[in-house]
Amino acid sequence: MSRILRYGMVGGGQNAFIGDAHRRAISLDRSAKLVAGCFSRSYENTCATGEELHVEKERLYHTYEEMAEKESAREDGIDFVCIVTPNYAHYGACKAFLEAGIHVSCDKPLTTTLEEARELEELAKKKGLLFMVTYGYSGHIACKHIRQMIERGDIGEVRMVAGEYIQGWLAGDDITGNKQGEWRTDPKLSGKSNCLGDIGTHIENTVARMTGLKIKKVLANMEIKVPSRVLDDNDMVMVKYDNGASGLYWSSQITIGSDNSLRVRIYGTKGSISWFQEEPEKIQVANEDGTVTEIHRGHDCIYPEAAKYTRLPSGHPEGWFEAMGNLYRSFTACISAKEDGTFTEDMIDYPTVLDGVEGLAFLEACLASSEEGNVWKDMEE
Amino acid sequence: MSRILRYGMVGGGQNAFIGDAHRRAISLDRSAKLVAGCFSRSYENTCATGEELHVEKERLYHTYEEMAEKESAREDGIDFVCIVTPNYAHYGACKAFLEAGIHVSCDKPLTTTLEEARELEELAKKKGLLFMVTYGYSGHIACKHIRQMIERGDIGEVRMVAGEYIQGWLAGDDITGNKQGEWRTDPKLSGKSNCLGDIGTHIENTVARMTGLKIKKVLANMEIKVPSRVLDDNDMVMVKYDNGASGLYWSSQITIGSDNSLRVRIYGTKGSISWFQEEPEKIQVANEDGTVTEIHRGHDCIYPEAAKYTRLPSGHPEGWFEAMGNLYRSFTACISAKEDGTFTEDMIDYPTVLDGVEGLAFLEACLASSEEGNVWKDMEE
Amino acid sequence: MSRILRYGMVGGGQNAFIGDAHRRAISLDRSAKLVAGCFSRSYENTCATGEELHVEKERLYHTYEEMAEKESAREDGIDFVCIVTPNYAHYGACKAFLEAGIHVSCDKPLTTTLEEARELEELAKKKGLLFMVTYGYSGHIACKHIRQMIERGDIGEVRMVAGEYIQGWLAGDDITGNKQGEWRTDPKLSGKSNCLGDIGTHIENTVARMTGLKIKKVLANMEIKVPSRVLDDNDMVMVKYDNGASGLYWSSQITIGSDNSLRVRIYGTKGSISWFQEEPEKIQVANEDGTVTEIHRGHDCIYPEAAKYTRLPSGHPEGWFEAMGNLYRSFTACISAKEDGTFTEDMIDYPTVLDGVEGLAFLEACLASSEEGNVWKDMEE
Amino acid sequence: MSRILRYGMVGGGQNAFIGDAHRRAISLDRSAKLVAGCFSRSYENTCATGEELHVEKERLYHTYEEMAEKESAREDGIDFVCIVTPNYAHYGACKAFLEAGIHVSCDKPLTTTLEEARELEELAKKKGLLFMVTYGYSGHIACKHIRQMIERGDIGEVRMVAGEYIQGWLAGDDITGNKQGEWRTDPKLSGKSNCLGDIGTHIENTVARMTGLKIKKVLANMEIKVPSRVLDDNDMVMVKYDNGASGLYWSSQITIGSDNSLRVRIYGTKGSISWFQEEPEKIQVANEDGTVTEIHRGHDCIYPEAAKYTRLPSGHPEGWFEAMGNLYRSFTACISAKEDGTFTEDMIDYPTVLDGVEGLAFLEACLASSEEGNVWKDMEE
Repeated sequence: MSRILRYGMVGGGQNAFIGDAHRRAISLDRSAKLVAGCFSRSYENTCATGEELHVEKERLYHTYEEMAEKESAREDGIDFVCIVTPNYAHYGACKAFLEAGIHVSCDKPLTTTLEEARELEELAKKKGLLFMVTYGYSGHIACKHIRQMIERGDIGEVRMVAGEYIQGWLAGDDITGNKQGEWRTDPKLSGKSNCLGDIGTHIENTVARMTGLKIKKVLANMEIKVPSRVLDDNDMVMVKYDNGASGLYWSSQITIGSDNSLRVRIYGTKGSISWFQEEPEKIQVANEDGTVTEIHRGHDCIYPEAAKYTRLPSGHPEGWFEAMGNLYRSFTACISAKEDGTFTEDMIDYPTVLDGVEGLAFLEACLASSEEGNVWKDMEE
Repeated sequence: MSRILRYGMVGGGQNAFIGDAHRRAISLDRSAKLVAGCFSRSYENTCATGEELHVEKERLYHTYEEMAEKESAREDGIDFVCIVTPNYAHYGACKAFLEAGIHVSCDKPLTTTLEEARELEELAKKKGLLFMVTYGYSGHIACKHIRQMIERGDIGEVRMVAGEYIQGWLAGDDITGNKQGEWRTDPKLSGKSNCLGDIGTHIENTVARMTGLKIKKVLANMEIKVPSRVLDDNDMVMVKYDNGASGLYWSSQITIGSDNSLRVRIYGTKGSISWFQEEPEKIQVANEDGTVTEIHRGHDCIYPEAAKYTRLPSGHPEGWFEAMGNLYRSFTACISAKEDGTFTEDMIDYPTVLDGVEGLAFLEACLASSEEGNVWKDMEE
Repeated sequence: MSRILRYGMVGGGQNAFIGDAHRRAISLDRSAKLVAGCFSRSYENTCATGEELHVEKERLYHTYEEMAEKESAREDGIDFVCIVTPNYAHYGACKAFLEAGIHVSCDKPLTTTLEEARELEELAKKKGLLFMVTYGYSGHIACKHIRQMIERGDIGEVRMVAGEYIQGWLAGDDITGNKQGEWRTDPKLSGKSNCLGDIGTHIENTVARMTGLKIKKVLANMEIKVPSRVLDDNDMVMVKYDNGASGLYWSSQITIGSDNSLRVRIYGTKGSISWFQEEPEKIQVANEDGTVTEIHRGHDCIYPEAAKYTRLPSGHPEGWFEAMGNLYRSFTACISAKEDGTFTEDMIDYPTVLDGVEGLAFLEACLASSEEGNVWKDMEE
Repeated sequence: MSRILRYGMVGGGQNAFIGDAHRRAISLDRSAKLVAGCFSRSYENTCATGEELHVEKERLYHTYEEMAEKESAREDGIDFVCIVTPNYAHYGACKAFLEAGIHVSCDKPLTTTLEEARELEELAKKKGLLFMVTYGYSGHIACKHIRQMIERGDIGEVRMVAGEYIQGWLAGDDITGNKQGEWRTDPKLSGKSNCLGDIGTHIENTVARMTGLKIKKVLANMEIKVPSRVLDDNDMVMVKYDNGASGLYWSSQITIGSDNSLRVRIYGTKGSISWFQEEPEKIQVANEDGTVTEIHRGHDCIYPEAAKYTRLPSGHPEGWFEAMGNLYRSFTACISAKEDGTFTEDMIDYPTVLDGVEGLAFLEACLASSEEGNVWKDMEE
């Protein structure tokens, strides 16, 4: 029996969305216990949030620097930190905890520049710390199964990928009062991109984790469709992978009628695969004769590497929390294994700082392509 | 800030399904903390399960009687018990805890006879205790919204209901090693019905909670399709409601290709509603002109009585755990309010012992109808 | 090269629906040429219709008796008649043409009583004439493929069938001006049943043709849901087949949001099949492991007995006219073969007078069951 | 009563697909009668086809030039010609019939070069002849309704269009014996493009007819994914329209599991519209609040300009033939009106030679963009 890990959180105060979501995902599996937090730039908010979450007063902090310092000094300090602030603050927070010797889980996009992302990669490596970047969709059992299918060659060699992530929530001109929308469309908090950074990178990562393909170059057209906006809200990207396959990615926040529509379709020489995030437990597998077989989480045909994350029988929907929970399940298992001395690299079954770096490399290549008039740009290694 | 409630569990040992599921549902909302258990008839299993769940050794019990007695005697005893054993044991366990003055959450079907169910209803009433019966599907935000729609008259007067709950997992003759299947098809553990008791009652309850209609009489045809079986595995029921509307219910465990397909369609004089448990966040609402509008959890049109349970934005799938969690959210809120003295009956937003009684009344009427040659039988009041 | 056959039509005047539909279905394949007609009880309507359809004036008739007599006397008389009147007139018209020695295609339900239907069966047999009853859905390539699948044992032994045919067009109380609705709800024109006769018999026939199963007995609940109506508009039927399998049929005209929703699901010991008339080219085949494969008209896996009717590649939708056209394709081929002396019974690939008789036997058994309080009634042989 | 028009056909011999399809589409509405043909470069094939179709021997021709000359000289000569050869022969045939004063219906793409297309446009104008280019999908009632919706401003200003037309039939390396595949992948018969010319132009035309938007410039990436091929089989195109909206088009013939999947999604400032060719009678309309309403052909909400083409009630599937038939219905009505002297330009409700020219302009701009390294190319006016 391993002990229950302790974690702290940076961000996730009242009115935030993703922090609460991470906490519930962790709770679902009881994989760790929240014991410390700096939930907001406002200490008042931090205290209110902390009280609600039954965190001891003395472990509620004014700044993440303070938190990193004090928690690393405690006997019963946090085993890992979960960073769920707006993008601009990721870098500083990650750095503080890594330097304090604490494992890090950070939301995506990892940073606002590729350079910062690489610096964090270096630092984590130097410190020998685990670093998860919470591209949550890769946690779905279906996504893990698709990864296995492609690795095993079930659809032959991949030739074409169509990825889209479209939402309608920012279609309107006036988003006053929409907290999530306000910070995402503000370059000071969000960085150089809104839409492509927030959701386009999910396409990039989901495809990468499913197919194992590396992007060689991109041709991007990042656009603003809502006149009052200053950051992109509709992005089209042509992609070339290392194996010669092509990709077409589209992310948008102005497509009225789409909730959170991440869809990935992968076409191989012997079959194809389709997955839709809003029905995350179904996979459509096209057979060579053109017929399409739908398989569900919970069916016997799901490969064991994916099936082991099952919590409920098929037809009993698992959703977003379970996918995110799967990331934390592997992350906390790795931390425990580190403690026990049983850790090996192949235990890692979650997106790491490397995924974070690739996300930034993708984003920066797209920004450069778009700024230079929609020309092909190599992804930097 | 209300304190975190303490609960104990009867059933839910290693290899069980529903106990683990309840624990996770409760964890998701951190609505209560597991502190005691009698997880199995085998004390060994109870101990192994308890250790895994970090329950103190002294609060692991040999029998539920012992647990009821000792927990009720403790200062820090459990606030409620969660009973998740096979059907046959529900009655005894419920009774023991009610008599010990402890609130009860019990899985469905509540008992194996209507008489026992009524006795529990009486006892809970006499003791002034809260009693939840965990028909989990009613916890879905979509189901709560549908209930509001019908109450508000959005589709006019209900005239016809088509409910089906079909599964394929017991289609095969040989189910050796399938723990869930073994006990459900065994009259000693399951009672007088397998399929109708296990899933047919979910149709009955889901429809009842959505529409508020009372069943007046039933005509049932309960059948065994797999030759080696002794309890029903395919059931058709014609239904008449108190308002003159009709219903057609079909439950089956032999429909290969169905996972867990509870589908309810409700037809009114001004519109209709369709809901499918495997895509629990979508509602299809047919308009009077024949067009059909699909609405999703998270959309602004969801009525506040349902929307208040939202945890994630639309398009971020919530599933089975969230629905069950919603039941516990209301149940624990009611318990806390009882403690505070702020409790009122209209706070109850979960199925109670009355739903449990109705489920048994439905089941017994169907059994009688089927035994007497598929004739109409009145539901006893 | 066989000559183009000549046909006449009874019914199908201006404002009628099904007559025009039959004419187009025949035209699509150029399988016969319209040369005579008694399109309406109103000779004026007949003349107007005839002119529009370029039928010679002298072959437009006041009554079907006149038409049968005169056409049978002509050298270039019609090869077959197409009877598409309201139900009440089928019997007389069929009889007149059979007696005149002319092959008959008649719409369903064949007659308004079982006795009449049997009389027509006898007469056709005696006269050695071909007699098609236009249950058009059986003409779909998908339906023909399903028939082949079941015959070949692809899903094992059939154990359960769920058939429904639901429409919303008669949900409203006031149907004034709705010609199709007016005659169907009028016992003088429609017979003893509206909904079950009009669409319930389609369930019966579609299932019969797909599965080859014979109905042994029925328990029916035929209801009126719209207060102003005098004939049934919502019907539920429990069915037992000769092989021990069960069926559950539901037909309704009050389900707002349903257009013309005939859906048949067939559950066997080794798999299951689902087909939906509104997407008539798709078949969902559930495999024994619970996965579901969707196959489409035009795919290589379609059996040759069905595939031979293909007119367009897969993905180029064929619909209602093609299905009806397929009936006429076989019917006219049989007539030509009769003329050539090459006809054999196994060439018949359309529903015949026997299907018509079975439809009436089903209807009368349901009427009797419903009148006697929803009891089991044997289907008369 | 207008007389039945007479038509001839060039192409459409035995083993051809599209010629037969056009003939059936015309037959369905009895809008014209086939009386002459040059069905193949092989006179033998022409004769065999002609006999099968009951065309008089003397009106079967060796060449289209002969046909144009002789038919234009006859009193009872053809009213229009239907040209359904492989692409390379369109230009010559169109020219011959236009010069002979005969109205023309020609398959798409109109020619193999923009220059030829413009020459035909000029010639038709000079001769005062009607010229239809058979982009058949625009004939769907749903497409006509969408056109009306956008014209009326129902979804506000269009901001983004996603169009895809993907098929799997050419995914394999070896297509020997596949007649349709052989000529399309052969530059001598097909022209400079296979996939984009054959199906990509359908996206261009369907979007143009639905939205009324003009393409200003394109950035295309035309690729060969099957190694043995010499023409494109996977094409991605970024598009800018005159109103500032953007488009993303993807056409492919290597996507295993797709039959004939033309899908168009149109996003406006106030709503969005989605249409899928394989379910051609359904339209998904997203409302400003994010809910989505599905409307069907046959519903009362369909605008009269579209609804007038209805042949069957909703739920009785109309398909490909009906859509193509709708084109011919308007085309033949225009020809008759020309004869009667009642013709006006606004009667034209089918794609004309102008659509054909735009298709070639699109194709040539894409070819240029692709050849020059995927750069933006203006569409020539």
